[in-house]
Amino acid sequence: MVNTGRRPGNRDTREEIVAAARATFAEQGYVGATMRGIARRAGVDQALVHHYFKNKAGLFMAVAGLRHDPRQTFEAVQQSADPGETMVRGFLDTFEPRQKKDPSPFLVTAQAVSASREVADAYREFLAKRVWSRIPAHERGAPQALITAQLWGLAFARYVLRVEPLADASVDQVVEWVAPQVTALLMGLGRPRWP
Amino acid sequence: MVNTGRRPGNRDTREEIVAAARATFAEQGYVGATMRGIARRAGVDQALVHHYFKNKAGLFMAVAGLRHDPRQTFEAVQQSADPGETMVRGFLDTFEPRQKKDPSPFLVTAQAVSASREVADAYREFLAKRVWSRIPAHERGAPQALITAQLWGLAFARYVLRVEPLADASVDQVVEWVAPQVTALLMGLGRPRWP
Repeated sequence: MVNTGRRPGNRDTREEIVAAARATFAEQGYVGATMRGIARRAGVDQALVHHYFKNKAGLFMAVAGLRHDPRQTFEAVQQSADPGETMVRGFLDTFEPRQKKDPSPFLVTAQAVSASREVADAYREFLAKRVWSRIPAHERGAPQALITAQLWGLAFARYVLRVEPLADASVDQVVEWVAPQVTALLMGLGRPRWP
Repeated sequence: MVNTGRRPGNRDTREEIVAAARATFAEQGYVGATMRGIARRAGVDQALVHHYFKNKAGLFMAVAGLRHDPRQTFEAVQQSADPGETMVRGFLDTFEPRQKKDPSPFLVTAQAVSASREVADAYREFLAKRVWSRIPAHERGAPQALITAQLWGLAFARYVLRVEPLADASVDQVVEWVAPQVTALLMGLGRPRWP
């Protein structure tokens, strides 16, 4: 570890790694960024970055305020008897505020991607690399884009615009409203193998 | 008109009115803001504000970067044989960039509402007052919230995240993909009178 006079593992170090990652993802995109480059920028040993964040996806999730790995949700969807419900519930789990009165972590994501084209590019690359790459190439197309639109619109209406009755409805109620549309996109487009 | 040493009707005056309106909507919401208060804040005569922007809705549209009045789209939807198509097309007409390479005006809207809870409140009030108030009270509910989510998600995926194939598809192609989902929401929820 570079001697910066800080003890390893303290809160400042972690935040400095996240700040270095944020800048690196914005400059180089998700694919172009490396753990080594981010460690160097933060002035810490690369092993410490792995210790805190495991891998590049984990680091991106910290930058983007994502509580869960979307790949896990995707894998659960592939094995679910009700894939629309599993997807909507997994997505909401990522962004629901811990306390009803708190702002959603989705606000940070929405601010970051709408304020910077580079951050939006990195976010799209992250989704492509982490999730969509698991869909066989010949089955990729409109569905994943339309499902992304569906879920982001839900988050925008619930957490940012706070349109009633979406804003105050329970997760179960939102799932009941939105899952059928997602299921239709997943199943109804001639892609029985996806998911 | 207050004597500010400026000629009426020049570009600066218009922009100062928009800036005054932006601050007033953020502070007082859409319903609370008045044309008189905005004129006073901009240091111009109220008649000049009406001359430029017609009414409060026109002023809000200038602040929010909306090219069309959503009420007109709503009225067209009510008379359309294909309401989903009319709604998606009207929404895209509002936010499509003039040139393919330009950023969409939706970026300004997305930045503003995700950066400030007050602006998001004003935007929601604008939609409620200008559009949703035209739906009979007993028919209001989940559909308008889910349609809002649907359209905002589409704009986010197309203009901000720029997810393919949504980002580069023609307006006709996007309408073909998304209109059936909007039609289903408009028609399929036991609300035959809406629209």
